Amino acid sequence: MAANTILLDFSVEPGAVKNDNQMQVVATNIENVLKDYLTSLKQVHGLPFQGGLLRLYTADPGVTVFIRVYANGLITINMEYFKGDKDNPLLTFELSKVLEQKLQVQLASFRSKMFPPIKRGGQLDVYLSSSDERLLEYDIDKVLFEEISPYQKVQIVHSKSLGNILVLDDLQNIGESDLIYTETLMARKIENYKDKEIVILGGGDGALLYELLKEKPKEVIMLEIDEVVMKACAKYMRSICGDVLDKYDGPNYKIIVGDCMKSLEEFMKEGRKFDYIFGDLTDVPISQKHSGQLWTFYQKVLQMCFKLLRHGGKFMTHVNGICSSESVDMFKSQLDNIEPPVKFTTSKAFVPSFMEDWIFCQVFFDENKKE
Amino acid sequence: MAANTILLDFSVEPGAVKNDNQMQVVATNIENVLKDYLTSLKQVHGLPFQGGLLRLYTADPGVTVFIRVYANGLITINMEYFKGDKDNPLLTFELSKVLEQKLQVQLASFRSKMFPPIKRGGQLDVYLSSSDERLLEYDIDKVLFEEISPYQKVQIVHSKSLGNILVLDDLQNIGESDLIYTETLMARKIENYKDKEIVILGGGDGALLYELLKEKPKEVIMLEIDEVVMKACAKYMRSICGDVLDKYDGPNYKIIVGDCMKSLEEFMKEGRKFDYIFGDLTDVPISQKHSGQLWTFYQKVLQMCFKLLRHGGKFMTHVNGICSSESVDMFKSQLDNIEPPVKFTTSKAFVPSFMEDWIFCQVFFDENKKE
Repeated sequence: MAANTILLDFSVEPGAVKNDNQMQVVATNIENVLKDYLTSLKQVHGLPFQGGLLRLYTADPGVTVFIRVYANGLITINMEYFKGDKDNPLLTFELSKVLEQKLQVQLASFRSKMFPPIKRGGQLDVYLSSSDERLLEYDIDKVLFEEISPYQKVQIVHSKSLGNILVLDDLQNIGESDLIYTETLMARKIENYKDKEIVILGGGDGALLYELLKEKPKEVIMLEIDEVVMKACAKYMRSICGDVLDKYDGPNYKIIVGDCMKSLEEFMKEGRKFDYIFGDLTDVPISQKHSGQLWTFYQKVLQMCFKLLRHGGKFMTHVNGICSSESVDMFKSQLDNIEPPVKFTTSKAFVPSFMEDWIFCQVFFDENKKE
Repeated sequence: MAANTILLDFSVEPGAVKNDNQMQVVATNIENVLKDYLTSLKQVHGLPFQGGLLRLYTADPGVTVFIRVYANGLITINMEYFKGDKDNPLLTFELSKVLEQKLQVQLASFRSKMFPPIKRGGQLDVYLSSSDERLLEYDIDKVLFEEISPYQKVQIVHSKSLGNILVLDDLQNIGESDLIYTETLMARKIENYKDKEIVILGGGDGALLYELLKEKPKEVIMLEIDEVVMKACAKYMRSICGDVLDKYDGPNYKIIVGDCMKSLEEFMKEGRKFDYIFGDLTDVPISQKHSGQLWTFYQKVLQMCFKLLRHGGKFMTHVNGICSSESVDMFKSQLDNIEPPVKFTTSKAFVPSFMEDWIFCQVFFDENKKE
């Protein structure tokens, strides 16, 4: 049940729309073709605009059609109607292809495009974005969990092909299809976690903790602020987190619910040292979407981590989509400000539920620059 | 340079729009918020429609705003303007988030959605679809090749993150990022191609031929009808096809340009037998998009292949996206009609440039049912 917006456009030679008369003919030609599908089509408004033309139509059942002719030869047609779950679509895929072809012939158009209907206002939002704000339609068919926590909007949705996906503030976070994400974050088979002491900043989905524990570390301490995320994942993401979120401690791990900065400060006071610290915060300020304030926080966290790492220790983190190269560069430039000096390597993996390559970074002490 | 269509929608309690007066207030509230961004905003039309409301506005520079209030509480706002390459966007990402929030507060809306602007009529079409007709926006920034061959529209486009992609009739065919596609099609490390005789039906991108030749087969014969595809790939897809398309024969391979049925019939007459036949036709009738005619053709090809296969031989093919389960089932049901009886296994892989899991099928003689 959603409003369906059908977008269709054509390009014609600018010579074919060079005066009002020609543009009226073009619009009327479109109207005549559309009448085969929308018999009650009726123009309710029309006006010249910006050297082009606008026309607004209505038709049964509750359809609006907006035609805009641009002076440069582009013609856009936007149709909209409300489709109940049991209603037949206004145009099936096959019919819409026929309509597109008919109009292309009628308009002598050299280029045309018909978009799949855009579903709006339904119970399910099937549209998410890539890291560089590209529109991606998922085959999401269920919302399994939704709650506004004190920190963020927490959702677990089901995708027919990708399985369950954790979505935080409308950003894909991790999916059941994304073992590659966790394995690339931890550089499995490259790093050796046996008997190591490890801290995870964030990691509320439990996947990193679950995979690290398989490598027999001495201890993993996970610092996650949002219990809502952990409870949701413990229930709906068990294929990626197993039972590690069922209780907050185990023989070789501990989950501390709270602000990670506070715990890091306590570790400092206690003089604790670690072999690995993971940056798996749900809200890393590397996206274009985030402000300077978060960068300052992240810088502070990073600086603290390097005080807590043993000689030879590493800070491992996800960064951003490969498409957001500016924010990846911004992350790297942050590393220049760390004391003592650090070096880094990067890795990448295509993460199915993100539908893009993701960049990961492994940061370690620069021994050459050490005094 | 493209028309930008900005889609934005809000849900309010139906009680808030239960008469014309309330709906007029809602629309005017939207108008007042939009005026902060579009100072010259001017209503040019308004009418009650289907228990709801329509309003059409214009504003500088060349912007149209269409507001529709549905009786059930959904409010859609569609803005459209033409953006030249050097023009600033009407709304930056940050600004559009602020606008969404302001409107959400103003309308007391419990749900809102702002889509990334949809680019229409530009030189680049960045929108492709999944196998089940979901809208996917790619980071395509260049068209490297475009030609209408006697068989199809052949394009090679460049994606910033996925590299070059072969697009046939607006369907993603294979990308430089898709070695996994070819390796799953050929079941690398499972099948042994050493000293084998192999036929490829289609395969014009050259990737399968290139990868098979690495396995030291006795001979590979590729039957491809569209030379335009091969020439384009030889130039722009060398990372996936190497030099195999530079000439049409080599020490252990041969490319026959023409209708594969004709060649298969000749092989029959010559009494030739093969160990593997690959179905890598660019146009397999397994998509919902294709008609019954193509199914008949495919059935005929499949039947012929099983006459040409040696005892123990296999027919290996790609099928469709996992999201198109109906057409995958339709393919499987076709196998019931083959004589002698056949059995099959399937495999799948997430193909980056398709942005979905793809199904592959390995068909072989059913020895149990053999007379």
